Amino acid sequence: MLQPHLEALDACLEQQVEKFEPEIREHVSYSIDTGGKRIRPSLIFFSGWNSEGSVDKNLVQLAAVVETVHLATLVHDDIMDEADIRRNRATVAKKYNNATAVLLGDALFSHAVYLATQFPTNEVCREIAVSMRQVCTGEILQTMQRGDPDLDMETYFRVIDLKTAELFRVSCHLGAMLAGFDRSYIEAAAAFGRHLGIAYQIYDDMTDLFGSQEKIGKTLGTDIATGKPTMPIILMRDRLPESEAQELRETLAGKIEADVPRWLEKLKEMGIFEEVRQAIFEEIRKGREAIEHFEDNPSSLHLRTISQLLWNQVAAL
Amino acid sequence: MLQPHLEALDACLEQQVEKFEPEIREHVSYSIDTGGKRIRPSLIFFSGWNSEGSVDKNLVQLAAVVETVHLATLVHDDIMDEADIRRNRATVAKKYNNATAVLLGDALFSHAVYLATQFPTNEVCREIAVSMRQVCTGEILQTMQRGDPDLDMETYFRVIDLKTAELFRVSCHLGAMLAGFDRSYIEAAAAFGRHLGIAYQIYDDMTDLFGSQEKIGKTLGTDIATGKPTMPIILMRDRLPESEAQELRETLAGKIEADVPRWLEKLKEMGIFEEVRQAIFEEIRKGREAIEHFEDNPSSLHLRTISQLLWNQVAAL
Repeated sequence: MLQPHLEALDACLEQQVEKFEPEIREHVSYSIDTGGKRIRPSLIFFSGWNSEGSVDKNLVQLAAVVETVHLATLVHDDIMDEADIRRNRATVAKKYNNATAVLLGDALFSHAVYLATQFPTNEVCREIAVSMRQVCTGEILQTMQRGDPDLDMETYFRVIDLKTAELFRVSCHLGAMLAGFDRSYIEAAAAFGRHLGIAYQIYDDMTDLFGSQEKIGKTLGTDIATGKPTMPIILMRDRLPESEAQELRETLAGKIEADVPRWLEKLKEMGIFEEVRQAIFEEIRKGREAIEHFEDNPSSLHLRTISQLLWNQVAAL
Repeated sequence: MLQPHLEALDACLEQQVEKFEPEIREHVSYSIDTGGKRIRPSLIFFSGWNSEGSVDKNLVQLAAVVETVHLATLVHDDIMDEADIRRNRATVAKKYNNATAVLLGDALFSHAVYLATQFPTNEVCREIAVSMRQVCTGEILQTMQRGDPDLDMETYFRVIDLKTAELFRVSCHLGAMLAGFDRSYIEAAAAFGRHLGIAYQIYDDMTDLFGSQEKIGKTLGTDIATGKPTMPIILMRDRLPESEAQELRETLAGKIEADVPRWLEKLKEMGIFEEVRQAIFEEIRKGREAIEHFEDNPSSLHLRTISQLLWNQVAAL
């Protein structure tokens, strides 16, 4: 049942292109056609799962809203990160220019809101607006913190909660709401989404430091080199002897050149990866706990399954 | 009656700051505190004018939405234009950095949408979303057209319709709607707003080429130097003898250095300014025609007055 929903979503997103002004359709089409993982839409479809076997148009519409918001943030993110490539294609900022990327992201945001206003009540639109603001705030904080050698774990969690977990949370919240489930399940699904989002971001950050460079398809250790303290880096810094910790701080602050292979080796030696893995499992567990008393709702079983997929990926790292 | 509404708007905008996450309130406060002209809010208050003498909270809320959208576009515009100063203060992009400016603009957009969802119906939010998309599209087109020596008048009008007139139009449309006026007046007010927006943008473009450098507080001729063809430049180009027209084209395309004083002199010699002035008056006239049969509605008289203010400014140039 997931596949027909994802296909309906793809069709819906393609149809959106012609709703933009003719002069920018080419740009919109380029930014939508990303072949992404569609995690947030999957959360929506699972949270609002019914057993009738038909494609739920409301869920597809909601998935189009959330995915469009997500695509807009990617377009803007790639400007911040000065990224040239995303999923084997030139980023919008690279293909056109930064100015176009800023404005195209804005146009995508606006269109997502427009799609959200197609629901009979204001609630979808209001929740999406608040989530959008939180995602942007998380990104601003991350930008401000780049190169901060003393970033603590609490602040790290605060940022990933805003920039990633919020959109996972709202996907589950609104998916369950549109399916007409009762308040207690809506809140449980939302809590599940939030913990899964935190787990996912820790995992995503972890793949920058650990894993096969060829398999992941990106250079390892860029977060160390660009001064972005993630969970493994914070844990390592706080346990190293003072002189080495100081060197890591200066690396993060950009005062000395990053010796990436050395720090990657150090992370392994210190057993940091196992600890991060356990932190991810802990978030997944918390998410599952939130929905564990709803086993009579098939939606909860599907959410559990999606959490297992992440668990397996992390275990295989 | 305008003043109490504008004061209520200022108070409302100030109150928004604390609705953002604590970490970015300083940034939000900086971007809101612009001392702008509040043209769009004034259009809202005049379009929804009632004779009861009390401050209309719905109109103030709507004005906060539209002004926040406008402020967000300014934050993003200043990135495009690489502007350091706006209204005698450092732009957000300059004071912080481009990344923060992109994201802060996004957060402001999101919050504007949130404020729009506070109305009982979806209509305000939907109209605002469509307007936001059109404004961004207009800005994208303008960015793409920079340095195009052959831009024609039709395209120039298309861009100002999207990037400026649309927000003027929606201000009048929704102001009249929230006041409960009937459909025919709502449409008339919207048409007035659109024509006033076109007139305003032509005027704004004109002040780049004509006027006292000291009084306007900006360097004259930057649009020629940076290859942005506006109405006076297009008119001049299409009437110059071919060899001179070709020189102007190459100037706009950035192939030869701009001899700004020469082109300013040429514009005067050719009587272009008078022609542009007449084009502005013509748009103002069209706007007035749209509302001329609604003289029993005091709102229409106030809209007429606001159009007179622009007329006077243009006449005094």
